[in-house]
Amino acid sequence: MDKTKVLDHGYIRLVESWGSDERIVEAARMSTDGAFRGWGDETAPGDERLLRYLYTNKHSTPFEMAGAAIEVQAPIFVFREWQRHRTQSYNELSARYVKLDGLYYVPTLERCMMGPDDNKQAGRADGAAELTEEQAQSFRAHLVTGYEVAGREYKVALANGVPKELARCIMPVGHYSRMRASANLRNWLAFLTLRQAPNAQWEIRQYADALNGILVELFPRTMELFNEHS
Amino acid sequence: MDKTKVLDHGYIRLVESWGSDERIVEAARMSTDGAFRGWGDETAPGDERLLRYLYTNKHSTPFEMAGAAIEVQAPIFVFREWQRHRTQSYNELSARYVKLDGLYYVPTLERCMMGPDDNKQAGRADGAAELTEEQAQSFRAHLVTGYEVAGREYKVALANGVPKELARCIMPVGHYSRMRASANLRNWLAFLTLRQAPNAQWEIRQYADALNGILVELFPRTMELFNEHS
Amino acid sequence: MDKTKVLDHGYIRLVESWGSDERIVEAARMSTDGAFRGWGDETAPGDERLLRYLYTNKHSTPFEMAGAAIEVQAPIFVFREWQRHRTQSYNELSARYVKLDGLYYVPTLERCMMGPDDNKQAGRADGAAELTEEQAQSFRAHLVTGYEVAGREYKVALANGVPKELARCIMPVGHYSRMRASANLRNWLAFLTLRQAPNAQWEIRQYADALNGILVELFPRTMELFNEHS
Amino acid sequence: MDKTKVLDHGYIRLVESWGSDERIVEAARMSTDGAFRGWGDETAPGDERLLRYLYTNKHSTPFEMAGAAIEVQAPIFVFREWQRHRTQSYNELSARYVKLDGLYYVPTLERCMMGPDDNKQAGRADGAAELTEEQAQSFRAHLVTGYEVAGREYKVALANGVPKELARCIMPVGHYSRMRASANLRNWLAFLTLRQAPNAQWEIRQYADALNGILVELFPRTMELFNEHS
Repeated sequence: MDKTKVLDHGYIRLVESWGSDERIVEAARMSTDGAFRGWGDETAPGDERLLRYLYTNKHSTPFEMAGAAIEVQAPIFVFREWQRHRTQSYNELSARYVKLDGLYYVPTLERCMMGPDDNKQAGRADGAAELTEEQAQSFRAHLVTGYEVAGREYKVALANGVPKELARCIMPVGHYSRMRASANLRNWLAFLTLRQAPNAQWEIRQYADALNGILVELFPRTMELFNEHS
Repeated sequence: MDKTKVLDHGYIRLVESWGSDERIVEAARMSTDGAFRGWGDETAPGDERLLRYLYTNKHSTPFEMAGAAIEVQAPIFVFREWQRHRTQSYNELSARYVKLDGLYYVPTLERCMMGPDDNKQAGRADGAAELTEEQAQSFRAHLVTGYEVAGREYKVALANGVPKELARCIMPVGHYSRMRASANLRNWLAFLTLRQAPNAQWEIRQYADALNGILVELFPRTMELFNEHS
Repeated sequence: MDKTKVLDHGYIRLVESWGSDERIVEAARMSTDGAFRGWGDETAPGDERLLRYLYTNKHSTPFEMAGAAIEVQAPIFVFREWQRHRTQSYNELSARYVKLDGLYYVPTLERCMMGPDDNKQAGRADGAAELTEEQAQSFRAHLVTGYEVAGREYKVALANGVPKELARCIMPVGHYSRMRASANLRNWLAFLTLRQAPNAQWEIRQYADALNGILVELFPRTMELFNEHS
Repeated sequence: MDKTKVLDHGYIRLVESWGSDERIVEAARMSTDGAFRGWGDETAPGDERLLRYLYTNKHSTPFEMAGAAIEVQAPIFVFREWQRHRTQSYNELSARYVKLDGLYYVPTLERCMMGPDDNKQAGRADGAAELTEEQAQSFRAHLVTGYEVAGREYKVALANGVPKELARCIMPVGHYSRMRASANLRNWLAFLTLRQAPNAQWEIRQYADALNGILVELFPRTMELFNEHS
């Protein structure tokens, strides 16, 4: 499937999904020995009522009967937050085994200036001045230089025979990595709840927003309920 | 409890434990409606036989009735491997909220020279020369310099008002972080099995070895079985 | 520890706990590199504010740093609901290995008459009359007789050499079983949220209420927050 | 999909699957930044070698990238064992909400006579005689009668207005229930390892064997490795 571009060099793309809004209803109906009865229309409401009931009353297990596997490219610091979600399955590129390819994240000027509005703790250090556009540009330039220095040292180390697993020590957490992640829909929704929240870091929020868009295509009725409530 | 030093600036220390070898036997006896009968001696073997039976026949659930919480300081790349264990609970220092303190990992010369013996994939890049002691020293020196550059850029960014969550982009994965981790004994044993294995990276193996030592104090009979079989 | 009696022949008792309200604060402070600062009093509020912040903002991971193991005796149908909680560890008496001891649950008259107020679905069958006290007494008497018949058949089968694992087929789900269950506090709170809810079956609610009482002793400040919000 | 008949009134059927042998290889290749290279033939071995390597070296996470959801009808005592697997998702018929339909498990004569060969503990009670064919037939007849008595009492209770959630107390664990279960392939393999083992109860082994057959159709190469090693 097509990649959705995220940040300067990242992306997210669907590998595969399973289940559907109907399967969720079908699974819920196991408990009452029934079956999916069809979606309704203006004249006759159907199982969208049951789906809503399940969702709003937190009957969560039927939402485990659908799911999706995705591929993501994101900076290491984003993966550090992402992989704290222990209900997903992960297969990630390993810098022990692969020579890193030199893609680094540089926040845009706009991003630098927006600050972490809803999470003061993540903002500027105590006693620091307010960021000016000039300083932000300077930060971006220094970041690029710092990445270049790290990348050069890394390559020299590898060329000299330093094991890949040690040469990587110098790699900044702004370097991109890549992984596949798989989870059921219940757990993806929990992920979105935390990572689309205003106090989540802006960068992971961009991935969560993109994922939300993918899930809307796959599970339109469930996602409508989710997006209506969040 | 005392810290066990690991690597150049890391440590591991026990925060708290629960359960015991006896509790494990007691839990196993739930299934047959019995109780712990005492450990034996030379003349009369006791419940060490049941413990061995449970262990060697992979009756794993009783080992979930004991556990330990620890505190660890380790380089970020070690935590990246560690936190892939999804059955542990984690609370880690957040570079979104805290100004990092400038502790970095520099492998010893000896460590650089040992290479990843049992995991060729993690070794030197294709086509690279064999590492000489001179090159290894040079790598170590450049690593120190690279860390210093990154640390300086980081501090300047913070001073200029760049949000902590962005300033950290330049931080190398060799920087130390700190966390608490809690798991039951079954899951700690699974962790040790993977992370004490010869193909695990040497750095995380040092933490796993130290943890093994801590668990031996807490659960001597179970750990004797584990260490005998691994 | 002492058993808390639940239903006619059931109980719940604490085996062991770990962590504390303070440990939870301590774990949360890992993220900001701080330590527990003490509870406050009227003149100077202390870390009870942080605990409240964690709880009300659903920062759940610090609550995984405490926990409790319990022993429970309950009817099989209660365990069927209980063990759907997949984050607990279980060791249960096995009717494959042990001759069952003939303890059965007979609801009191009062219980029969209360019906499932908040969960009509769990109530009387479609088209059935409303339950009278007389019918309820009759149900209780027939239940006792039915249990006796089942128990007799079970014993005869065992005496004739039928394997325990087959003889048990006749055992009603009203028969008592016994288990140990262990979970961290975050997961115990999720259990209580679902099982103390008004739409949970009355029988498991009695166990959940008793467990709540035990947890209040162990983690008074956290449980005050929980009970205030539920 | 078609139902596979299991025991006298049970079945198992595939609802849906995701992933494939190829997807597993593809996920594993994430770590080395590669892609699936195709299966080989006699002249040129292909990625079946990598799959074998993953399997035999217990690199388990790629096997989490495939999975299956099934529907099962089985006696309650089988579900009691099944649902102890905490990595599956379940939606089961609820006797709180649905009037049970009177399907009960009666083991065949042959089954009664085979005993639990590999698990003496599950066998006849201490001091009991060896089971004769006559006694086994008698057991089967009494089981049928016992089920009939329970079923009759259950219906009378319901007719008299006893809530469904209480009327079910008399229901024997030989009564059939129905559920959907979903898990990734890694966890299904762990299930099969335990439930196809000779010391597992014969009844659940029939379900595990049938599931194995379903998985062989879906993931032929992975299952060949599994069946070769178990």
